[in-house]
Amino acid sequence: MGRWEPNARGRLATAALDLYSERGYEQTTVAEIAKRAGLTERTFFNHYADKREVLFVTAAEFQDRFVGTVSGALTSVAPIDALAAGLDAIADMLAGQRDFARTRQAVIMSNPELQERDLIKLASTSTALADTLRRHGVTEPEASLTAEAGIALFKVGFHRWLAADEERELSVLLREALDALKSVTAGG
Amino acid sequence: MGRWEPNARGRLATAALDLYSERGYEQTTVAEIAKRAGLTERTFFNHYADKREVLFVTAAEFQDRFVGTVSGALTSVAPIDALAAGLDAIADMLAGQRDFARTRQAVIMSNPELQERDLIKLASTSTALADTLRRHGVTEPEASLTAEAGIALFKVGFHRWLAADEERELSVLLREALDALKSVTAGG
Repeated sequence: MGRWEPNARGRLATAALDLYSERGYEQTTVAEIAKRAGLTERTFFNHYADKREVLFVTAAEFQDRFVGTVSGALTSVAPIDALAAGLDAIADMLAGQRDFARTRQAVIMSNPELQERDLIKLASTSTALADTLRRHGVTEPEASLTAEAGIALFKVGFHRWLAADEERELSVLLREALDALKSVTAGG
Repeated sequence: MGRWEPNARGRLATAALDLYSERGYEQTTVAEIAKRAGLTERTFFNHYADKREVLFVTAAEFQDRFVGTVSGALTSVAPIDALAAGLDAIADMLAGQRDFARTRQAVIMSNPELQERDLIKLASTSTALADTLRRHGVTEPEASLTAEAGIALFKVGFHRWLAADEERELSVLLREALDALKSVTAGG
C-alpha cells in the first residue's frame, strides 16, 4: 500500500472486473488479477481478502450511507420520507458509476454464489434499517415493513438503472419507484 | 413408496426435523434420519433428494399457491387486493403448522447455507409474482414493486407468527402487516 503503487486498489478492482467479464469469475485467479494490474499477489491481498471481496467492497459503505441517512432524517420527518432521503444518498454515492455497476451486475448474475452474497447483503441492510427505525420509536410491524420497503425500492430502481436501454439517473428511478409503491398500496 | 410404509414421507420429515433440532443440521446424516423413522436410507431417497430438501419441500407449493391465487384474483381486483388474496391463501396453507414452522425456522437460522436457500426461495417467488402481474397488464415499476411488497408482507407477518410470545393467527398478522404498509407509504 506504499506510494510506489499509485491507486493500487482501484487498478486491482478494474483488472478484476475486466477479467471476470472476459473469462468468467470462476476461471480468474488472484495471480492473473495482480498481473493484469501490473502488481503483485501480495499487493492484492494487502487490499482485498479474496477475489470475491473485490465485488462487494462497497457493500459496507452502501449500508452505512443508507442507514445513516435514514437515521439522521428520522429526527425530523416521517419514516417514508426518511427512506426517500436514504435512497437519495445512495443515488449520490453511485452517481457516475453506471458502467462499472452494469459490468459488476453481469458478473454477479453469472454465479449463484455471488447472487447469494448479494441477497445476504440486502437482507443485512434491511435488518440494520429496521433496528434504526425502532431506535427512533417506530413500532412493529411498521419498522420492519418500512425497512423491507426501502430494500424493495432500491432493488427495483437499481435494477432499472442497469437496464441497457435506460438513460435516466438513479435518483429519478428511485423516486419513480417510491411513487409507484405509494400508488400501488393506495389501491391505484 | 409401497403400502408397507404408511406415511413414510411424513415420518421422515418429522425424524429429520427432530434430529436437526437435537444435534444440529450439519451433524445429522441421512442414515440417522432413516433409522429414527424406522425406515431405510433407500426409502429416504425415494422421497427426498438430500437432507436439505426435507426443509424446503413446501417451497414449490408456497410459490404455486401464492402466485396462483394472485393471478386468479387479478382478473377482478386491483394488484394490492390480489396480493391480499394471495397472502390469505398462504395463511390457509400454513394453518395449524406453527410448531413445525417454528422448529424449521430455528434450524434454518442456525446454518448460513440454509438461510441463503431461504432467501433464494423468496427471491424466486418475487420474480414469479412480477411475471404474473405483468402478464395481467400491470406495468413497471408497479409490477416489480407489488411483487416485492408481497414478499415483504409475507416475511414480516410470518416472522411475527413464529415469535415465542405470539398467539394470533398468521392470517391476522398478514393483514396487520398490509395495513401497516399502507399506513407507512401514506406517510402515517
